[in-house]
Amino acid sequence: MPSGPRGSDAIDTAIDESDAIGFVTRCRGDDPTSRYVTGFDVDHDVVYVRLPGETHLRVPSTVDIPEAADAASIRVDDQPAGKAAAAVLASHAETGTVLTPRTIPHDAALHLEAAGYELASTTALRDARATKDAAELDALEWVQRAATRGIKTAAVILADADVEDGTLVWSDAPLSTERIRRQVNATLAVEGVDAAGATTVTTGTRGGRDEAVELVAGEPIVVSVSPRGPFGYRGALARTFVVDADGGWERRAHVACDAARDVALVEANPGADAGFVGSEIRAETAAFGFSMESEVTRDVGGGIGLSAREYPPLDGDTELAAGHVCRIRSAITHPDHGQVELTDVLVVEDDGPRYLADVPTGLDPAGWTE
Amino acid sequence: MPSGPRGSDAIDTAIDESDAIGFVTRCRGDDPTSRYVTGFDVDHDVVYVRLPGETHLRVPSTVDIPEAADAASIRVDDQPAGKAAAAVLASHAETGTVLTPRTIPHDAALHLEAAGYELASTTALRDARATKDAAELDALEWVQRAATRGIKTAAVILADADVEDGTLVWSDAPLSTERIRRQVNATLAVEGVDAAGATTVTTGTRGGRDEAVELVAGEPIVVSVSPRGPFGYRGALARTFVVDADGGWERRAHVACDAARDVALVEANPGADAGFVGSEIRAETAAFGFSMESEVTRDVGGGIGLSAREYPPLDGDTELAAGHVCRIRSAITHPDHGQVELTDVLVVEDDGPRYLADVPTGLDPAGWTE
Repeated sequence: MPSGPRGSDAIDTAIDESDAIGFVTRCRGDDPTSRYVTGFDVDHDVVYVRLPGETHLRVPSTVDIPEAADAASIRVDDQPAGKAAAAVLASHAETGTVLTPRTIPHDAALHLEAAGYELASTTALRDARATKDAAELDALEWVQRAATRGIKTAAVILADADVEDGTLVWSDAPLSTERIRRQVNATLAVEGVDAAGATTVTTGTRGGRDEAVELVAGEPIVVSVSPRGPFGYRGALARTFVVDADGGWERRAHVACDAARDVALVEANPGADAGFVGSEIRAETAAFGFSMESEVTRDVGGGIGLSAREYPPLDGDTELAAGHVCRIRSAITHPDHGQVELTDVLVVEDDGPRYLADVPTGLDPAGWTE
Repeated sequence: MPSGPRGSDAIDTAIDESDAIGFVTRCRGDDPTSRYVTGFDVDHDVVYVRLPGETHLRVPSTVDIPEAADAASIRVDDQPAGKAAAAVLASHAETGTVLTPRTIPHDAALHLEAAGYELASTTALRDARATKDAAELDALEWVQRAATRGIKTAAVILADADVEDGTLVWSDAPLSTERIRRQVNATLAVEGVDAAGATTVTTGTRGGRDEAVELVAGEPIVVSVSPRGPFGYRGALARTFVVDADGGWERRAHVACDAARDVALVEANPGADAGFVGSEIRAETAAFGFSMESEVTRDVGGGIGLSAREYPPLDGDTELAAGHVCRIRSAITHPDHGQVELTDVLVVEDDGPRYLADVPTGLDPAGWTE
């Protein structure tokens, strides 16, 4: 499992290739980059300075320094991030080029420039995060297994539900989206992962994200989870169920989504263009007679790791590489029928892509309980 | 409950007072500012542009626009954030001053400057978020009640545990920090809130954050939660329990933490200096004979809302105001005895501070089950 700081080798390479003196970034408390570069859980701002071969962290005086942190490299500094970073850099070189992500906070960049450093942007940290090592893949598989058990809870409830006058009844009470959501989240909790505010249960065209809607037979029910595992890595899984399906729209939409899901397994190879993979997923979905403009989702996925959405996106001209891990999503929305969706997590390996968990895709919840 | 976008009035005032033409920020997908300024759940980057009286949002083409969003003000734009924002501003004024948070991404700031705008920093959005309205306070009270039920689950388990040869046994198996953590999280899930990766159960001086440690009698057990409610608002609650306390170190530490907790109720008035309140909490803790340098926590809390840590911090010279909501934390750590901690959430009201939930503070878990 992934403990310890990551990314420093990639940053050292970038420093070397740019003839720079170091690398600086500032991580907000709720930015998973903090976890990545420090190797411990932080919920406060961190200034990260990499000099070749050594990491320096600066934190505000209002936090207790985590025990896991290397005491030699972490210090309190309440100055603005750019000034705190400049003080570290000055111990190494008074002038020179400093690498930063292009999204470094503007005030930090201005402080570094005022201190006499020239800034150059680098994608080294983003690229390092996109390429998962074996320990990170273990964590991603682990959380994806928990995600599977969360979705299975919904399937078991739906398979067990009775239909009374067209509405679903479970445990002697009408079954709502919110009842399922809480049961799914309870399963995720018992599995040791956090729902991360990302569990949604939606049906038909009724109700918003935070509303409880009573479930009826024949209408597609989309259950979607994206839990966060103990080391911060995210899963992503969505399935669509129908109780007493009549084999109409939702059956056709499901066939399209399932076919699109298979396309990713053919196309997401090392060296493939990520934007092309995304286009192919959308094109395959549309090929079953759905409108690319108004029915097929635009969100077909992208990189997943410590964030539910990270590099690479499935658009643009990024080249996929072994170690990239992507959420793959196919979905169709119709104003009268509602939505059908399938989401999985795929890893790009040297010999091709592979879904991280082997999960049934069918519409019938009973398919999960056999 | 808080639905709908927030902060636009405060931003309009700042625009007016600065003779600016508008305000620009870019929210990352995992930045709660997105939720605040848009009023809906987003997990993707959003460019937010406020012209006087009107909000414009720009999102990447790889997302589906939320149904809750006002279709008149949200558009797809795959340009870098600064360019997308400049395109909106240009429809209103070709030149002029544009307000931004000082932490706007550096590349966005450079694109805005290249487009001919002069940037000036504002804290309007941060200050607006710090001051909670009635609907936000409802959401904070709601999630804090759920947090209370989460902690109660730990108390009930500990009160029910047997002591066998000094170790705690519950439901016929040794009781570990991890078993309690999962049960607490299951309760949070059933209450409809997310554990948000923030539930920790720690004991003595053994084990790290992610390790399961078997619990023993006489040693303080700190249970800490900071769940996220349905509208994104965070709770914060920590209690310390001891099974078969011998009345030694942990009793004295607990008295100190409890007294420090009461200090906040005296000092955190509108107009008070937030840094002074923080110092007083630490001083009161130390007054019971604990070392300010090595035993009393530096993290005594600060603003809480959509983030577990937000403005204002309990240091520096910020002035507290009615509507500010703060996590208040008192904690003592000892290399041999472990840790005692109490954390609550306090709202500053016109007539003084108030804790959001009335929660027992005692060391004896049986105190929760009476």
